[in-house]
Amino acid sequence: MEENMSRYKEIKAAILGAGTVGGGVYKLIGRRQDELPDKIQAKLTVSRVLVKNLNKKREGIPSELLTDDWESIRKDPDIRIVIELMGGIEPARTYILQALEAGKNVVTANKDLLAEHGKELMDAAERSGCDLYFEAAVGGGIPIIRPLKECLAGNEITEVMGIVNGTTNYILTKMTKEGMDFGEALGQAQKLGFAEADPTADVEGLDAGRKMAILASLAFHSRVTFQDVEVKGITKITARDIQYADAFGYVLKLLGVARSEDGQIEAGVSPVMIPKTHPLANVNDSFNAVFVHGDAVDDAMFQGRGAGEFPTASAVVGDVIAVARNMQYDCCGRIGCSCYKNLPMKPAGESRHKYFLRLIVEDRTGILAGVAGVLGNNGVSINQVIQKPAVDGVAELVVITDKVETRHLHDALVIFGEMSMIREVASVIRVYTQK
Amino acid sequence: MEENMSRYKEIKAAILGAGTVGGGVYKLIGRRQDELPDKIQAKLTVSRVLVKNLNKKREGIPSELLTDDWESIRKDPDIRIVIELMGGIEPARTYILQALEAGKNVVTANKDLLAEHGKELMDAAERSGCDLYFEAAVGGGIPIIRPLKECLAGNEITEVMGIVNGTTNYILTKMTKEGMDFGEALGQAQKLGFAEADPTADVEGLDAGRKMAILASLAFHSRVTFQDVEVKGITKITARDIQYADAFGYVLKLLGVARSEDGQIEAGVSPVMIPKTHPLANVNDSFNAVFVHGDAVDDAMFQGRGAGEFPTASAVVGDVIAVARNMQYDCCGRIGCSCYKNLPMKPAGESRHKYFLRLIVEDRTGILAGVAGVLGNNGVSINQVIQKPAVDGVAELVVITDKVETRHLHDALVIFGEMSMIREVASVIRVYTQK
Repeated sequence: MEENMSRYKEIKAAILGAGTVGGGVYKLIGRRQDELPDKIQAKLTVSRVLVKNLNKKREGIPSELLTDDWESIRKDPDIRIVIELMGGIEPARTYILQALEAGKNVVTANKDLLAEHGKELMDAAERSGCDLYFEAAVGGGIPIIRPLKECLAGNEITEVMGIVNGTTNYILTKMTKEGMDFGEALGQAQKLGFAEADPTADVEGLDAGRKMAILASLAFHSRVTFQDVEVKGITKITARDIQYADAFGYVLKLLGVARSEDGQIEAGVSPVMIPKTHPLANVNDSFNAVFVHGDAVDDAMFQGRGAGEFPTASAVVGDVIAVARNMQYDCCGRIGCSCYKNLPMKPAGESRHKYFLRLIVEDRTGILAGVAGVLGNNGVSINQVIQKPAVDGVAELVVITDKVETRHLHDALVIFGEMSMIREVASVIRVYTQK
Repeated sequence: MEENMSRYKEIKAAILGAGTVGGGVYKLIGRRQDELPDKIQAKLTVSRVLVKNLNKKREGIPSELLTDDWESIRKDPDIRIVIELMGGIEPARTYILQALEAGKNVVTANKDLLAEHGKELMDAAERSGCDLYFEAAVGGGIPIIRPLKECLAGNEITEVMGIVNGTTNYILTKMTKEGMDFGEALGQAQKLGFAEADPTADVEGLDAGRKMAILASLAFHSRVTFQDVEVKGITKITARDIQYADAFGYVLKLLGVARSEDGQIEAGVSPVMIPKTHPLANVNDSFNAVFVHGDAVDDAMFQGRGAGEFPTASAVVGDVIAVARNMQYDCCGRIGCSCYKNLPMKPAGESRHKYFLRLIVEDRTGILAGVAGVLGNNGVSINQVIQKPAVDGVAELVVITDKVETRHLHDALVIFGEMSMIREVASVIRVYTQK
């Protein structure tokens, strides 16, 4: 073994962060040690692992590799690949910029950072002629970044949609299949480790929003940041909404939808009712999926594990192998930033969607006429209505609209808020329609 | 425009074949003309299109580009990329080998050729230091070749399965959803252009078998040729089999299954009953999908349009863009043949599967005992049995076995053939089980 290996040159990498993903990447590189030379014509060695706390034991990582000194990695000319798996904005941002400046290639899974500072990082990579790969930032183990940047590069992509947060997909699946309410399903997700103690980033859609910023930037060749993505979470979704969705032939998912139309981009994350026949409707539990529509490829979908130690490590190690192959041919930095356009975001309120409205109303005559009148006056046309028999003087009125400009719906909702006959606008949920 | 373009170097390509896919590729490159320089830092021009018949009009392709003289392409040093879309073994094989020898990079969609002569072509590409890309050979527009070779390169892949023939998936979907029999569904597929006048390659599983040879070679890093793939088509599938599948909770698909276990590979294409909950069960009509299981990524699936002018062109143009990017950095041939292992195929008969058997039997006592006895004596254990009431003295007996070695089942089937009480072994269909 040793002898066979000796004819190969050695490529040294450092891992920043020894949490779940960092540990997984270290282990997976170890597991593939014998085969890597066949893949990259080199030996790949992790020579340093950066941690905050040197005293904490890291299962599976030899303690002599651990360091808390970034400078020792930055200044080591033998370390040619930096694998950033710390997460968060700082110090990850500074370390990546410094690594690139030092001529090191970078692989990262850091969606927060890319969604906010993507341009700065890509520019730095271009200046240095280094690779900056980030397959693991969206969809965990699912190959989607490179398929978008490379395999589908012949397309004009007009839509990219995704179930890109496993926690919320798990919660909604439980609510749908077992009739749980949100709190119960969240509790179970936390118990099983699918949701964190503070689930805000997941259930409020922030995590999905960051991933959609990255996907939209790649799909439309124009920089979309997290701030550009309209985000709405699932905390107000009730079992009742899900029952209605089912009755109308829909499944409720937390869906990221980004579209490019007439030279403008819209990108959002929100609960969406999608037809049961849509491929995304069957993506359940903690699985993720990304759906792409291009003018040549038509519809394509990629699904798999969106998180977890080894699925994420799969994406990271795939990137490391790509970088190593580039290094061997001296062609790092070959495929850099693909945002060669500068498209504006569509102004808020101008996007056109179909909506499901659930209103709690008083049980008296004229309600339907009143509601229909307000909608009509605001240019919101009605597609379907269901009025349920009243219980204790309170009735439920469900309206599915046609496709309307969101601002018109908002105008109508403001008026609903002032009408005494309407006790509560219980739900306003987007319904999927094709572009 | 002209002026902006003039600062870019020009990369010239030739297309071999001006059929549906060749025409689609020409049109798609034209459609992306303004954007290609942003993607590849060069102008991409198709300077020649090779056809057999110069007199045939080719819609959308200027007649001055047409030639029937391969030598004029081979000897043109300005043509750096050859896009082979003629199909078939010869002369495609010779042209590709000559193109590589002349230092031209090759993009091809030719599954027949790759499944039989893949090694010869990859070796030639390696000798010449050229790229040989073939994303369109499997799954049409679906990115799967590069995800397997690159994004998932950190995995040990143990299973790759696919619905990789759109014609048969369309036929089986019609049989399942509308209760059609095979002949009727085939007729409709032919009428709509989903099936050819001679449907043999599709309905007998040959097309799928070639694609599985390519997928298995990539997944397991060991050359699998078409001859290594056990192939069985769908011509004997009846509406009745599909009804039973449904009753047992399965969907019937023509499935390619390739597995690597204990250092041996098995690869086959056959009708398979898969659980309705499996992601492949929801891939309908002419859609294709490839499902991959790796030790790190766990399960991942890729679905989309498996054929057609523009979906296939999407994959071809994606490859051409990749080659052009490599040319700009002088790193062609970087990712060559990945068959660095030499694993044997599992001997026929030793693979272990679960089976659905439908027997037409005489209506007399002792039948079940007789059938069960033969199965038991041959080491085939029974999982489920259904005996239907007899009509006109003939009854139907359905057996689902446990996982058995295929040769044991074959032994039992030989004995069934000699038993007078068994009128006919109407169906023997594999049932999907996890590895």
